[in-house]
Amino acid sequence: MEEDKYLLPLYNRLNVAFVKGKKSILYDENGKDYIDFASGVGVNSLGYANKKIVKTIKKQAKRVLHTSNIYHIKPQEKCAKKIVELSNYDMQCFFCNSGSEANESAIKLARKYGNISFDKPKYKIITIKNSFHGRTIATLKATAQEDKHKFFGPYPDGFVYAEDINQAISLIDDSTVAVMLELIQGEGGIFMQDISQIKKLEKTLKEKKLLLIVDEIQTGVYRSGNFLISQYFEIKPDIVTLAKGLATGIPIGVMMTSKKNIFTFGDHGSTFGGNHLSTTVSCKVLNILEEYSNSGILQENIKFFDSYLLYFMNKYPNLFKQKNGHGFMQGLVLKDDTKLNELINSSLKNGLLILKSGKNIIRFLPPLNITKKEIIKGFKRFENSIIETLK
Amino acid sequence: MEEDKYLLPLYNRLNVAFVKGKKSILYDENGKDYIDFASGVGVNSLGYANKKIVKTIKKQAKRVLHTSNIYHIKPQEKCAKKIVELSNYDMQCFFCNSGSEANESAIKLARKYGNISFDKPKYKIITIKNSFHGRTIATLKATAQEDKHKFFGPYPDGFVYAEDINQAISLIDDSTVAVMLELIQGEGGIFMQDISQIKKLEKTLKEKKLLLIVDEIQTGVYRSGNFLISQYFEIKPDIVTLAKGLATGIPIGVMMTSKKNIFTFGDHGSTFGGNHLSTTVSCKVLNILEEYSNSGILQENIKFFDSYLLYFMNKYPNLFKQKNGHGFMQGLVLKDDTKLNELINSSLKNGLLILKSGKNIIRFLPPLNITKKEIIKGFKRFENSIIETLK
Repeated sequence: MEEDKYLLPLYNRLNVAFVKGKKSILYDENGKDYIDFASGVGVNSLGYANKKIVKTIKKQAKRVLHTSNIYHIKPQEKCAKKIVELSNYDMQCFFCNSGSEANESAIKLARKYGNISFDKPKYKIITIKNSFHGRTIATLKATAQEDKHKFFGPYPDGFVYAEDINQAISLIDDSTVAVMLELIQGEGGIFMQDISQIKKLEKTLKEKKLLLIVDEIQTGVYRSGNFLISQYFEIKPDIVTLAKGLATGIPIGVMMTSKKNIFTFGDHGSTFGGNHLSTTVSCKVLNILEEYSNSGILQENIKFFDSYLLYFMNKYPNLFKQKNGHGFMQGLVLKDDTKLNELINSSLKNGLLILKSGKNIIRFLPPLNITKKEIIKGFKRFENSIIETLK
Repeated sequence: MEEDKYLLPLYNRLNVAFVKGKKSILYDENGKDYIDFASGVGVNSLGYANKKIVKTIKKQAKRVLHTSNIYHIKPQEKCAKKIVELSNYDMQCFFCNSGSEANESAIKLARKYGNISFDKPKYKIITIKNSFHGRTIATLKATAQEDKHKFFGPYPDGFVYAEDINQAISLIDDSTVAVMLELIQGEGGIFMQDISQIKKLEKTLKEKKLLLIVDEIQTGVYRSGNFLISQYFEIKPDIVTLAKGLATGIPIGVMMTSKKNIFTFGDHGSTFGGNHLSTTVSCKVLNILEEYSNSGILQENIKFFDSYLLYFMNKYPNLFKQKNGHGFMQGLVLKDDTKLNELINSSLKNGLLILKSGKNIIRFLPPLNITKKEIIKGFKRFENSIIETLK
């Protein structure tokens, strides 16, 4: 496309552009429809053109989109209250504009906590192999994938990488202030941590007064079936970060923490963060999802979706070797890496959007309110794509 | 306010909350009106409830807010084209979600350029005293204000601080890859750099094949009267960063550069960045502002606004000692620091929103389409506030 010449070549874009959507279906420029099992990488939690969301956006745009955080912002207060209540943690929120910014906020808070809370300042943050925490210089360094640490140094010191949770525990020393992790690694293969190991880590950190930071940028906002996957793990993190699905397409990020007295005026901030538009929409998204979750349909559809993945696992053992994930964050592990792009491209051709994770995993992140009908239609297209891929 | 208990105490908020706006006027919960000379710190470039923007947002919300950058995004391509054409630079764009993210992108690009373009890798970036480049760990360290570098270390090495442009030139060594600066320092006192010094710096950098990064997060998007203040300075930066006013309240950031072949696939990215909503709105904002600027009214109203500032300078020499700034980014320097909060609070009481910059400067960043009538009304309230402050 001619206009591509004005964009830096940072993405390997598939040859399609979407012009509109309805529920969990996107339409390209030629009117072809695509069942969306990707939701803009977990962003479009309520799919497309949700009537309640369109109405909320329209109403808010007519009133006010943004004022500065030097004034009170009522929708921000309301949204924070909703997030804290849904989490059931005794926490406070900071609003920013992305997952990277949420994790930057978490790292800053943890480091200040480490700086002012101990006789000898603590600053090291342990992260887990194959994690992904963002694209800023500090969050990239927090990302425990050494091949991502080329070109952009000097990076900040103080990040320590553990192979797994047990090694994370053993790496804690008297400079360690926190362990930061995803309970399901989104980019790193839809790999879910073991609950008992996480509880052991939580206990160890609590005893040492160190922080557990859970990056729920992809798992949060009902993606796992619970509002937070931390709730499913029955743990109490000290810091949780959220972004993607929070406002079904409006840029937003949140860092929430039980450490309410560490940050003071001037330590951190955001110009756009928490403005009227993003927090009003987020509050509406959360209300809709809460009701939807309480109705039981979310859980029911997650099981329905899951049954298809098990079906494909069993039916195509030559193609798939494992099913990873939880809730509406699922992965099918391919036996043969080279089939990954083939299956994604074949699905695209057949009108189905799926994602990759790691080197050999098909990732499924459908809109949370996807219907059974859309699921059936999508997996029909998926099976056709499988058959074509196996030819 | 009760709900404040769910927000981290990071802002020193004035005791007001706005519920709606119209043109350059905001209304609080009691219906009281405020003339806005602050525009959400330069964000609300078209004021509030602009009919064309409301219509654009509504239309786009009904179609699609967001898809991933793994697909082509037509409004992103269109918006990039518009930005590049308005700049008249041979550049390409990367879209993100804030000023901090835009500057992170600039730092990453400069460092990769330094890493791969010379026999001995270069990585040092020189920044200017009292600059402000963001709130992430790297952009905070790029911010040449040592008092901001507490608590959150270890910071990344490689930032060097210069007192002024001449010192920046003298600090260039064989590890230096770039100089990064604001042509008017927004947080640092609305201080405008000297054109001939900047041209000297530009020439020096070009000769050494080093990069000039201009942070136009506050000055950009017609704030200075030109689309970029770099155009007014008649320079050709290698990297320009934009954010605040780009989409009149939707979170967005842009890093644009003439170095098109440095970043390759996977070097950088954003989930929300460049999505349908933010870039469609931004494109509309840019079209409206371009037309407005071409009509001559923007320049006319800037002069009109300016004449008031000169009037106050002359009439109240005991209060103001200097006028700083350019275009719709202006500052009045107070003789007495202690009057700063007093004048801001008095203005708030009288229905006028103004900002501070540095320790003793009143900052004016009105919506770019503010009318003469609103300017007159606002400055009447300002004079009443001056009189009260001098009592």
